[in-house]
Amino acid sequence: MTRFVYDFDEPADGGRELLGGKGIGLAEMTQLGIPVPAGFTITTEACRAYMRSAGTVEGLEEEVARHIRQLEQRTGKRFGDAGDPLLVSVRSGAAISMPGMMDTILNVGLNNESVLGLARSTGNEEFAQDCYRRLIQMFGETVDGIPHERFSIDDTADRAREVYERETGGGFPQDAREQLQRAITAVFDSWKSPRAQVYRQTYGIPDDLGTAVNVVQMVFGNKGDHSATGVCFTRDPSTGEPGVYGEYLLNAQGEDVVAGTRTPQPLSELREHLPEAYDQLLETLGRLERHYRDMQDTEFTVEEGRLYLLQTRTAKRTAAAAIKCAVDMTAEGLISREEAVARIDPTQLDQLLHPRLDPNAEFDVAAQGLNASPGAASGKIVLDADSAEDSGKAGEAVILVRWETTPDDIHGLIQAQGVLTAHGGMTSHAAVVARGMGKPCVAGVEGLEIDAGAKTIRLGGQELREGDVLTIDGGTGRVIVGEVPLVPPAINEDFETILGWADELRRLRVRANADNAEDAAKAREFGAQGIGLCRTEHMFFGEERLPLVQEMILAGDEDGRRDALDRILPFQQSDFEGIFEAMTGLPVTIRLLDPPLHEFLPPLDEASDERMRRRIKALTEQNPMLGTRGCRLGIQWPEIYEMQVRAIARAAKAVQERGGDPPLVEIMHPLVGFREELRRLRELTERVMEEEAPELEYLCGTMIELPRAALRADEIAEVADFFSFGTNDLTQTVLGMSRDDAEGKFLTFYLEEGVLERNPFEVLDQDGVGDLMRLAVERGRQTKPDIHLGICGEHGGEPSSVEFCHRIGLDYVSCSPYRVPLARLAAAQAVLKEAHRGEYVQAGG
Amino acid sequence: MTRFVYDFDEPADGGRELLGGKGIGLAEMTQLGIPVPAGFTITTEACRAYMRSAGTVEGLEEEVARHIRQLEQRTGKRFGDAGDPLLVSVRSGAAISMPGMMDTILNVGLNNESVLGLARSTGNEEFAQDCYRRLIQMFGETVDGIPHERFSIDDTADRAREVYERETGGGFPQDAREQLQRAITAVFDSWKSPRAQVYRQTYGIPDDLGTAVNVVQMVFGNKGDHSATGVCFTRDPSTGEPGVYGEYLLNAQGEDVVAGTRTPQPLSELREHLPEAYDQLLETLGRLERHYRDMQDTEFTVEEGRLYLLQTRTAKRTAAAAIKCAVDMTAEGLISREEAVARIDPTQLDQLLHPRLDPNAEFDVAAQGLNASPGAASGKIVLDADSAEDSGKAGEAVILVRWETTPDDIHGLIQAQGVLTAHGGMTSHAAVVARGMGKPCVAGVEGLEIDAGAKTIRLGGQELREGDVLTIDGGTGRVIVGEVPLVPPAINEDFETILGWADELRRLRVRANADNAEDAAKAREFGAQGIGLCRTEHMFFGEERLPLVQEMILAGDEDGRRDALDRILPFQQSDFEGIFEAMTGLPVTIRLLDPPLHEFLPPLDEASDERMRRRIKALTEQNPMLGTRGCRLGIQWPEIYEMQVRAIARAAKAVQERGGDPPLVEIMHPLVGFREELRRLRELTERVMEEEAPELEYLCGTMIELPRAALRADEIAEVADFFSFGTNDLTQTVLGMSRDDAEGKFLTFYLEEGVLERNPFEVLDQDGVGDLMRLAVERGRQTKPDIHLGICGEHGGEPSSVEFCHRIGLDYVSCSPYRVPLARLAAAQAVLKEAHRGEYVQAGG
Repeated sequence: MTRFVYDFDEPADGGRELLGGKGIGLAEMTQLGIPVPAGFTITTEACRAYMRSAGTVEGLEEEVARHIRQLEQRTGKRFGDAGDPLLVSVRSGAAISMPGMMDTILNVGLNNESVLGLARSTGNEEFAQDCYRRLIQMFGETVDGIPHERFSIDDTADRAREVYERETGGGFPQDAREQLQRAITAVFDSWKSPRAQVYRQTYGIPDDLGTAVNVVQMVFGNKGDHSATGVCFTRDPSTGEPGVYGEYLLNAQGEDVVAGTRTPQPLSELREHLPEAYDQLLETLGRLERHYRDMQDTEFTVEEGRLYLLQTRTAKRTAAAAIKCAVDMTAEGLISREEAVARIDPTQLDQLLHPRLDPNAEFDVAAQGLNASPGAASGKIVLDADSAEDSGKAGEAVILVRWETTPDDIHGLIQAQGVLTAHGGMTSHAAVVARGMGKPCVAGVEGLEIDAGAKTIRLGGQELREGDVLTIDGGTGRVIVGEVPLVPPAINEDFETILGWADELRRLRVRANADNAEDAAKAREFGAQGIGLCRTEHMFFGEERLPLVQEMILAGDEDGRRDALDRILPFQQSDFEGIFEAMTGLPVTIRLLDPPLHEFLPPLDEASDERMRRRIKALTEQNPMLGTRGCRLGIQWPEIYEMQVRAIARAAKAVQERGGDPPLVEIMHPLVGFREELRRLRELTERVMEEEAPELEYLCGTMIELPRAALRADEIAEVADFFSFGTNDLTQTVLGMSRDDAEGKFLTFYLEEGVLERNPFEVLDQDGVGDLMRLAVERGRQTKPDIHLGICGEHGGEPSSVEFCHRIGLDYVSCSPYRVPLARLAAAQAVLKEAHRGEYVQAGG
Repeated sequence: MTRFVYDFDEPADGGRELLGGKGIGLAEMTQLGIPVPAGFTITTEACRAYMRSAGTVEGLEEEVARHIRQLEQRTGKRFGDAGDPLLVSVRSGAAISMPGMMDTILNVGLNNESVLGLARSTGNEEFAQDCYRRLIQMFGETVDGIPHERFSIDDTADRAREVYERETGGGFPQDAREQLQRAITAVFDSWKSPRAQVYRQTYGIPDDLGTAVNVVQMVFGNKGDHSATGVCFTRDPSTGEPGVYGEYLLNAQGEDVVAGTRTPQPLSELREHLPEAYDQLLETLGRLERHYRDMQDTEFTVEEGRLYLLQTRTAKRTAAAAIKCAVDMTAEGLISREEAVARIDPTQLDQLLHPRLDPNAEFDVAAQGLNASPGAASGKIVLDADSAEDSGKAGEAVILVRWETTPDDIHGLIQAQGVLTAHGGMTSHAAVVARGMGKPCVAGVEGLEIDAGAKTIRLGGQELREGDVLTIDGGTGRVIVGEVPLVPPAINEDFETILGWADELRRLRVRANADNAEDAAKAREFGAQGIGLCRTEHMFFGEERLPLVQEMILAGDEDGRRDALDRILPFQQSDFEGIFEAMTGLPVTIRLLDPPLHEFLPPLDEASDERMRRRIKALTEQNPMLGTRGCRLGIQWPEIYEMQVRAIARAAKAVQERGGDPPLVEIMHPLVGFREELRRLRELTERVMEEEAPELEYLCGTMIELPRAALRADEIAEVADFFSFGTNDLTQTVLGMSRDDAEGKFLTFYLEEGVLERNPFEVLDQDGVGDLMRLAVERGRQTKPDIHLGICGEHGGEPSSVEFCHRIGLDYVSCSPYRVPLARLAAAQAVLKEAHRGEYVQAGG
């Protein structure tokens, strides 16, 4: 017969899965000889049996009874005894902690009689009555489902009993064993509560794991001045500084620390009050940290001078603390470098790279938009790019507030602290540019209205003027009126140490997406090993260039287009020179013009003349995402790509002639779906390169961003030196979802309602898009085993996607400069996970 | 050593591929004992050797010389003889006949001397001089590349020689062997002419096949009244009627028949003039048809009473002739039913189903648009749907001319003979509706302008008034001012016979795409075995419904939407009842609402009030193709799909209660990408079905029209009874091409420039889209081996795509009603091709 119950001091095979997180902690502490109240754990297997049998688990009641008897023997008290009763707490404890489940019922075993016995034995009538009140209320709420608000913290035990009787139509159970039995059943049932089910669905936790139940002898920290209760970390969870960090209350119960009714004292003061217990606690915490080889978060109680640990678990910590801890523990010989690297959550690194709102600041959120680019900033409202530039150059902090930004606003964006837009989503111009610059952006703020004439805005019902101060938090999308204190970025030596270790481990190279010399330099500073995506569309905008570009688009014939392009060339050559100088010696992948040409023309109602209007109409598309863009431009109007290749070749030559290292140029053709497209463009590329810089070594390749390109990677590889997976567009086409039309609309609904678990534009859809990538890698390598493979979609900076790229054998990931550190870390963790054959080694796992 | 030359009477392994089409015909006729001039064939292998060696083929010259000597012995004449010279023609003959290649040089062997000998031996100076002129001109043009216009048909031989000398700077070669050698080389070289290369690229003919060269003794039909020349078919190529059909000229050469300088006489008159030759010809044609078991197209010459066949090949024929021939030859025991079925080109069937322009009519094309729906029609111009309806009901033939049509025009479309639009492409409303109705439509006519106020249109520079007569040809996109005589459709008994045989052979079932009872009835008439796609968006339009639909869209909450939907339900129920009655006993696949909701609202500038304007703005999408449509509607607003399922269930019940066969209802959810979407919609479907018609059997499935759905067909199959490949949208997403934005724009450019060979929206892209379909079939069947699989994109009515569907194991194809016969035939041919292990058995192949 399966065994369902284990005393804390009994070894059990099955660990966390069988005993739950709380149970395994209590058992391990007991077995280490650390003082823990006596008790036992009912296993998750019992819960599973309960669910299978719909209520009765053969033998469980007897087994619990036997363990209660052992507990009675051990403590010398009797369960249900009227004089000095044995009291227990009943606590749930699944393998993964989960909101929505029953938590704790304290003081099980008290009844109308024994409450008097407890009063006598403690000499504290009020304490005993309060214990009983707590039992009745907790039991009533969690076992009988009485709404929380029917009870009050000011109730007496008698009053709580009256409420209980009125609500249930029966008396409060007086039999200790019945109380225990029903509490256990309530824990089992709470596994299936709707909230717990939704949580499991959201986080992909199997429904059939079940929860364990812990039955623990009550100990009391409120038995006078030699009693106390507290929580304690083995290091500072905010900073990672060594030395215990915690709080306690003398003569109090655990709940009181949490409830905040009294102000706890710093742990150091316990040394004066209860020196022996303090020393014992310190020694215990040291043992725990050495045992678990990680920072612990514990609860303790001192009952009349005697220390009990009630819980230990891996401590949650800030990114800064996680890094300091990992580096320190490696120095202390506690963990290896691999473990140090494995323990940092890459997504937390953003905290360290950008300023953020002071977590202790208080403020009202005036409006909520999309979290389009992380970081926080305060500044005066400005409503146009020119003012932003003027104020910025004058040293004023400003936030540029616009309906939406266009490439014409770029000089304002450079000078502003952050940008706030009424329209647009995660892929809007403002969002993309801000992410590249590492500046905060909140986009798509519903209800934001701008009156450019009156120089006012309406935001969350308030009217504000240009010059008023706003704070935006691009990591959460919050907008606050007035200034909020910020915490500065924290890139320190420990940060560099960990990333250095990560670099030694990882196989994937990490490049950055950067379109200009400044971003390229930033990327290099963050450790980028090249540029994986240099978009060139920005090089067609700007005061001097746009009129030429429009002239080109409006030209009636090839000669007219070539004439305009000849005058655009020097500008682009100079752009490329800057980038090549910043990335000297490293590879730079340049994507030729991608967006549809109508993006370079004004809106129809702003067109200057009939010719322009006709051209705009002719170029207008129903689904521009699927229209004349990418290499379809280069094939129809080869002179455009020719000019770009020429500018690249001349720039490379110029840098080389000035004595710089020759850049490793990679020319990338976008939106290829057919081998023949790339074959023609490769021919064009080779011809121009031969004309301009015959000695220059370079690669010619393509984005894989259409399903057809992935499917026919074998054919396309015949004419490609490299593939770069453009997972933004690949996600749009594989899922048939326009990001602009999905986010904030049906996709948001899907995520809220659980149709989808993750936003596929943030976290790579491995089952769909990823499956196609895997196929493309396989087919591409079939034709050309050494073809160079990378990813340049935004997924290249998302940890689980980076891991996937490692698994399918890409050579590099490319992401925005500010995500480079994250990608370096994630790439190293991918190696560690692979080495552990899928066993998850992250902190707490 | 490889042998390069075969006399016509020498057996050669390698057939058509080695000897070319013309050579194999001459050899087979010779070997059958049919009178053919003596001669020999230089093989395609020689041509390949010539291309490989860039000019010299070892031993070829000697081999040719040897065969010339044999020819001399056989004919008793000498090549280059001055008195009575042996003359030959040199003719190219590839395995597949190909424009752009050199055709024929006659009279090779004549020179300044022998022309006099020929004059003497024939007693006809003029004839001899004319032969020489022809040689010089043909040789000059094809061997020396002298432009055609430098010569004239009125030249004398002397004059031709002068031109030749001036153009080449040398004399006309007098050596017969040199003439022959250079003529052969010219044929080889013409294989690589640009025109031939483009042709091969277009039709996928390998570049390395090469051409054969035939050297044939000249015979002359112009040696007096006992000589003649003609062309002759073994049956009538227009109608297929039995009995030879041809024309001839007495005392003439073959060219004269083709050139039209004299009017040929019908073959029957030859019986009077040359009775023996006539009888011999008839006997010969009978033998040829029995030998080839197919209608032959021959050339013959009678030289002084003696008959020679110069060529025989499979005859090109009209669709009607092809069908009659196939049925008759089966009755005659000449071919099997399988062969009869294999010989009909399915794409020709369209000719028989629709009226078309009389091929003999003469007219000017006023404008050219897209060939949006086949067939031809004449009628008076009307500019609005109401007038079309009035005139149509009054019995007048009208053509509805519009900028573009909308669902509001449906009553006019029903009454019009055809529709002509200025905007829109192959997927425009007008095109889709017209195809469904089998009416001609020409769409997207550039330069067509409509002045609704003045009741005039401008078309190809002319101004026309309402009431003027137009003719449109939807099969070619031509628009003609005035009436053009039409040829009526020709569905006869033979047509039914062939399709009946096809039905016995095919494995694929054929369904139709039909959205209403009329189309459904038409489809059934054409042999559809069910409806594979019943779109329901039309059921939301119409005078009475649209206001309710708009009320639903504008409603602020679910109650408001349900209220409007309740009032839409009876209309849709009645639509479904009509369809179910038309398709009694057969399956009907109903696709729930697919288009984005903004399609049901007016354009922004026509919005009636601010609320409407706001809603239109909120629903406007950047890429509607990838936006909130398909099942994304049904998941966000389940009440819409609930109403549709309810209407379907009630309609099915109503039909059944009236004593009809229960329809086989299949409910299809569009645009599914994730299992979870279909799981939720299946739950909804089952719930409503259970409420409304618990006994009704039905299937619940999905379109596979997103790459993700194809990739995750395994998971989706868990909750689907059937898949229907929506290859229109699948092509758009796999290729990243919006059909609306591609056709007439970059896709047209791609097709013209040879980047793509076929329009992937017409002919399934088997390598890309098809590859994904194959994967989906494999993965879907992995989960559910008996899952029902079909296709409902337009490719379901295109022969090569139907064959592909057969090969990957689909259960059925579904296409527009007028394509059902084509699909039935193509499905049968797919079986035959499979049985012949890829060997192509179509006519002429």
